[in-house]
Amino acid sequence: MTKPISLGLVGLGTIARNQHLPSLADTPALELTAIASRNASLDGVLCFQDIHAMLEGSDIAAVSLCTPPQGRFEQAVATIEAGRHLMLEKPPGATVSEVQALARLAEAKGVTLFATWHSREAAAVEKAREMLSDAVITSVKISWREDVRHWHPGQEWIWQPGGLGVFDPGINALSILTRIMPDPVHVHAAMLEVPSNKQAPIGAELEMRSAKGAPVHAVFDWRQTGPQTWDIEVETETGTITLRDGGATLHQGDTCLIAAQDEEYRRLYKRFGELIAAGQSEVDLAPMQLVADAFLLADKRDTDPFHD
Amino acid sequence: MTKPISLGLVGLGTIARNQHLPSLADTPALELTAIASRNASLDGVLCFQDIHAMLEGSDIAAVSLCTPPQGRFEQAVATIEAGRHLMLEKPPGATVSEVQALARLAEAKGVTLFATWHSREAAAVEKAREMLSDAVITSVKISWREDVRHWHPGQEWIWQPGGLGVFDPGINALSILTRIMPDPVHVHAAMLEVPSNKQAPIGAELEMRSAKGAPVHAVFDWRQTGPQTWDIEVETETGTITLRDGGATLHQGDTCLIAAQDEEYRRLYKRFGELIAAGQSEVDLAPMQLVADAFLLADKRDTDPFHD
Repeated sequence: MTKPISLGLVGLGTIARNQHLPSLADTPALELTAIASRNASLDGVLCFQDIHAMLEGSDIAAVSLCTPPQGRFEQAVATIEAGRHLMLEKPPGATVSEVQALARLAEAKGVTLFATWHSREAAAVEKAREMLSDAVITSVKISWREDVRHWHPGQEWIWQPGGLGVFDPGINALSILTRIMPDPVHVHAAMLEVPSNKQAPIGAELEMRSAKGAPVHAVFDWRQTGPQTWDIEVETETGTITLRDGGATLHQGDTCLIAAQDEEYRRLYKRFGELIAAGQSEVDLAPMQLVADAFLLADKRDTDPFHD
Repeated sequence: MTKPISLGLVGLGTIARNQHLPSLADTPALELTAIASRNASLDGVLCFQDIHAMLEGSDIAAVSLCTPPQGRFEQAVATIEAGRHLMLEKPPGATVSEVQALARLAEAKGVTLFATWHSREAAAVEKAREMLSDAVITSVKISWREDVRHWHPGQEWIWQPGGLGVFDPGINALSILTRIMPDPVHVHAAMLEVPSNKQAPIGAELEMRSAKGAPVHAVFDWRQTGPQTWDIEVETETGTITLRDGGATLHQGDTCLIAAQDEEYRRLYKRFGELIAAGQSEVDLAPMQLVADAFLLADKRDTDPFHD
């Protein structure tokens, strides 16, 4: 058995503690040996105040960034320049062009860059992709409605410029969409509802279209209390298939084909190990391009101020 | 001498009359044989009410679209599906992803797609590109200030979603920037000033950065009365070079190297003829990606309502 790849984690927030740490513990190919966090430490690993100290003070071969997207570019450049492989939490950056720049830099430096989309690793996504690979799709409906107060309490960065607002969860739906559709999708109309005291949308509607002409309608809403909804319904000439629970369950008509446990981050880290071993990168910016295009094209409407 | 390629022009607005028609008349490789316009006709050529009638009722081999970007996608798809070569006025569409879709479609159909950036054809741009190809660039300043009331009187589409606002001229600067810089550029901060009665910005500031780390600062303003400014100033380790007048003049320090007549659209049509003859396409979306990323990332500020 080969020695595991030593990895440093940057940013020890909720997503790191709930997902990255337990998933890393279950990934034999990788070994967490360092963290960089201003305010937190972790038993049994090297702890640093910031990524620069970590890159200088440890012999980690790979870095995983779980910090907010707005400041991630400098951290990513430092990592790649230091010859370390890099995995990015979603969204991979604050703009499409900065991640394109990272991809070029990683290629020049010969390191792996993995821009992750955790929802693509949900249990039923690959099956849906297979079922749709030769289907004639007539329409797609996305409904992604959740309660921001529950999922992002007090997280100010999501409302600031570059924070995406309701597209922070919405881009998960778009990452699944662009994975399961057999042909590319583009935005042709968008509406954003922006709270009068914030910079990012709390609600959005996108009208998209596949290259073969199938309409894709998406509603993203952060004001949903009660049951939460993360559904993608695909109508084809031979019937309907529905992904629910963010891609964890799959129905064909009324029949449940898959209902499985969440293994998203375990799969991401396994894949990161494989990409490093193979000397490859994986950077698909299609979900982020759709969001950038939505902002570019959108009819923007002021809505009620939002208070946590 | 080979027979000229017959071409149909769609949209007979100001830009078509002032630039496209005289330039086509000076391009031996192309012959204007048809136009499509709801409200205008032109002596000596076949006139149609819309592009669909033109594509069906004429044997044109190529189409040039001068319509506003918001409705151009359907016209472009119809053209390419009909097996005709296609030239797009800037910006090439309302979103990046829709033009990517057009590029794929054109490739599949084996026709030429030319997404034009007329400012790249300004007299001094290629010389600036040559001079910068092996320069060490330390900073770039863009100042693009004009009077919207003079240049776009009553044009409501530029203020509507997808109309780009001050980026309609600003993207010309970005098209020059992305042509003359020896390495790619990305946006890392943006500020947009949006009139309270409009959807698109009247002023913008972009903080960009080249892959090699040179800062690029751009100011776009549509409220400039009096002298108009379209300048790009590039500081290098060996001195300053300045493009003025939208790329028509070039100074190295105080020395004027080039000051030439505008031939932008003549060069575009010449190039379109060459691309068709060579069976090639040219679609560089870097300028538009920067604008989409600016909208995505921007700190958006309300400003005074605008009235024509």
